[in-house]
Amino acid sequence: MSDSPRLALSGERFAAVYHLTGTAEEAAARARDICLEQTVEYPEDLVSREDIRQQIFGRVASLEPVGPERFEARIEFPVEAAGQELTQLLNVLFGNISLKPGIRLVRFHLPDSLLRHYRGPRFGRHGLRDLVNVHDRPLLCTAIKPMGLSPRELADLAYQLALGGIDLIKDDHGLADQCFSPFDERVKRCSEAVGRANGQTGRRCLYVPNVTAPVDEVVRRARLAREAGAGACLVSPGLAGLEAMRRIADDEQIAMPLLSHPALWGCFTVRAAEGIAHGALYGQINRLAGADATIFPNYGGRFSFTLEQCRDLVDGTGCAMGPIKPIFPVPAGGMSLDRVPELCRFYGKDSILLIGGDLHRHGPNLVENCRKFAELAKQNC
Amino acid sequence: MSDSPRLALSGERFAAVYHLTGTAEEAAARARDICLEQTVEYPEDLVSREDIRQQIFGRVASLEPVGPERFEARIEFPVEAAGQELTQLLNVLFGNISLKPGIRLVRFHLPDSLLRHYRGPRFGRHGLRDLVNVHDRPLLCTAIKPMGLSPRELADLAYQLALGGIDLIKDDHGLADQCFSPFDERVKRCSEAVGRANGQTGRRCLYVPNVTAPVDEVVRRARLAREAGAGACLVSPGLAGLEAMRRIADDEQIAMPLLSHPALWGCFTVRAAEGIAHGALYGQINRLAGADATIFPNYGGRFSFTLEQCRDLVDGTGCAMGPIKPIFPVPAGGMSLDRVPELCRFYGKDSILLIGGDLHRHGPNLVENCRKFAELAKQNC
Repeated sequence: MSDSPRLALSGERFAAVYHLTGTAEEAAARARDICLEQTVEYPEDLVSREDIRQQIFGRVASLEPVGPERFEARIEFPVEAAGQELTQLLNVLFGNISLKPGIRLVRFHLPDSLLRHYRGPRFGRHGLRDLVNVHDRPLLCTAIKPMGLSPRELADLAYQLALGGIDLIKDDHGLADQCFSPFDERVKRCSEAVGRANGQTGRRCLYVPNVTAPVDEVVRRARLAREAGAGACLVSPGLAGLEAMRRIADDEQIAMPLLSHPALWGCFTVRAAEGIAHGALYGQINRLAGADATIFPNYGGRFSFTLEQCRDLVDGTGCAMGPIKPIFPVPAGGMSLDRVPELCRFYGKDSILLIGGDLHRHGPNLVENCRKFAELAKQNC
Repeated sequence: MSDSPRLALSGERFAAVYHLTGTAEEAAARARDICLEQTVEYPEDLVSREDIRQQIFGRVASLEPVGPERFEARIEFPVEAAGQELTQLLNVLFGNISLKPGIRLVRFHLPDSLLRHYRGPRFGRHGLRDLVNVHDRPLLCTAIKPMGLSPRELADLAYQLALGGIDLIKDDHGLADQCFSPFDERVKRCSEAVGRANGQTGRRCLYVPNVTAPVDEVVRRARLAREAGAGACLVSPGLAGLEAMRRIADDEQIAMPLLSHPALWGCFTVRAAEGIAHGALYGQINRLAGADATIFPNYGGRFSFTLEQCRDLVDGTGCAMGPIKPIFPVPAGGMSLDRVPELCRFYGKDSILLIGGDLHRHGPNLVENCRKFAELAKQNC
């Protein structure tokens, strides 16, 4: 390679914040390593071109202790390295270093020149509230389940749940397009049932089918859902890919709110020393990929998130990201009616409360149980 | 729900093997929990329908100790639960339980009735060997880098590497579609350069551009690569989604071998108690998603895989999966010429050796350095 400088980048940078495990010396070495690994992927001594060293290498902007054997590094990368695509942005933020122990991505900060490549959530918190016409309390969500029920049985459940005052009725995320519950039939029946209930209540409950599928199918199913009268879609970006979610978020023919489900995403958060922190993944990355609400396992349920992790997650759903809208946190995973007051205190009214199985525990009258849920949410906000 | 049985599934099951952390009692509880969490996601006592209990619930087929506080559970799920789609298969295998600590997916076994929904690798080991016309040794791979070089400079590098006898010349996975190296121009120049070298050597070196991008762009770029004369494509399924890779693997207009890159996949393997084991992820899942070769950080490089993990990974690339072809393991991540004898011993000839930066360390004549690499691989197999 010649020594003549030829690159002429803007000089503008975006920042990623990492938590690094180890001694101060180890953390400093890790931080320097990230600067190379996430850009040139090349031994430093072999890069003779000064322009590449100056303009492409990441830079350690700060490195501070934040706990025992834990440091916070802010590393700045050239905006041009991230291209105009979420795939490449994620690659620079955490692609290769995901393979190294002791590094966790905790937050990132993008300038407008990068943010403008992302539409983000089409509805966000305000838009989704307007759709369901509920402004003074958390929204109420539940799932139709279990796997094994027929479309007719699921539609019957959806009807009762909508009558009872639920705002968002989602498919259980295990309902895909199985022989016992084919997607097309299920979506038509459930959309019709929820529409019928809305006609009786005067409310605007949304049915939220699960469109998680191979790429072309995600688009087809979401369009079919729209035509059938569904009100939103459920996607698991861990299964279908973040880009599949973004594809339907940006589709003008679909134009429905998207609920993001965390299937397979546990791998990113399960250990605190590695992976991607809750706020960055469930909040920031979901927002860039077009989610309007993010479902996650609440602390104290049947999963493993802590209270602090949930707080960080909520922060990521609302933190400043230029024109990218804030989205709803949707605490879930074994929640029960008796926890509604606590959920309301912790999450406030800008949340969606998702209670599944427990709605079926309080006597045989599902409509009545939903009304209890709605009453509890109203009283506690 | 009524008690009358209405489901009439085939009774056929597929099996997932998990490693569970904890005491025998805890492991047994985890295994039972997986049976519900991955199917009905519903409290067991609320499922009154006997047909759903019998036909939908997962079943613990075996549970054996495999180490201190470590158990291996084989759990069988109805084939119908997985639908006909990789997204839903992954969901049943590991969707929700990825969010619970102490559970690792280590292997899975699919009957023909599920495997027939997957085309798998179009070329596999044999097909890729035929394309490059090398049958008696490991294939040789390198990357054009670093980020910051222009398409013209990268093409010049590719030309020399092809002259030197490399079989597969891939884009560094950080090369996307940045202003300093636009995809279309890079692919045209590099394809032409490698074609020119092939004309001189009489060999069939393949240029492998990185097509990782948003969904529609992956398809466009892969088609453009094909038209430009590239020989294969590089995809990072962790960034673009496994389904994006499968989309182009199944595309008859593209029909090129695919190299899978592990960017962002570290999150799945970084801790041994959780996530997805190397053989299942890099081998089995990659194969279902159409990869012909899987790049991974070799033990003893600058990443963290152990020798045992690499062995498991290789096993996953070749284990029996009905008609789904075996694929090439591609050990990488800081490999050097002096390790070629060891790599040949460990991986045998059915591998692709990827050496990047180190090829530039052995004197200024890149063509000569490549010849050394080829010579070493030949001598040691």
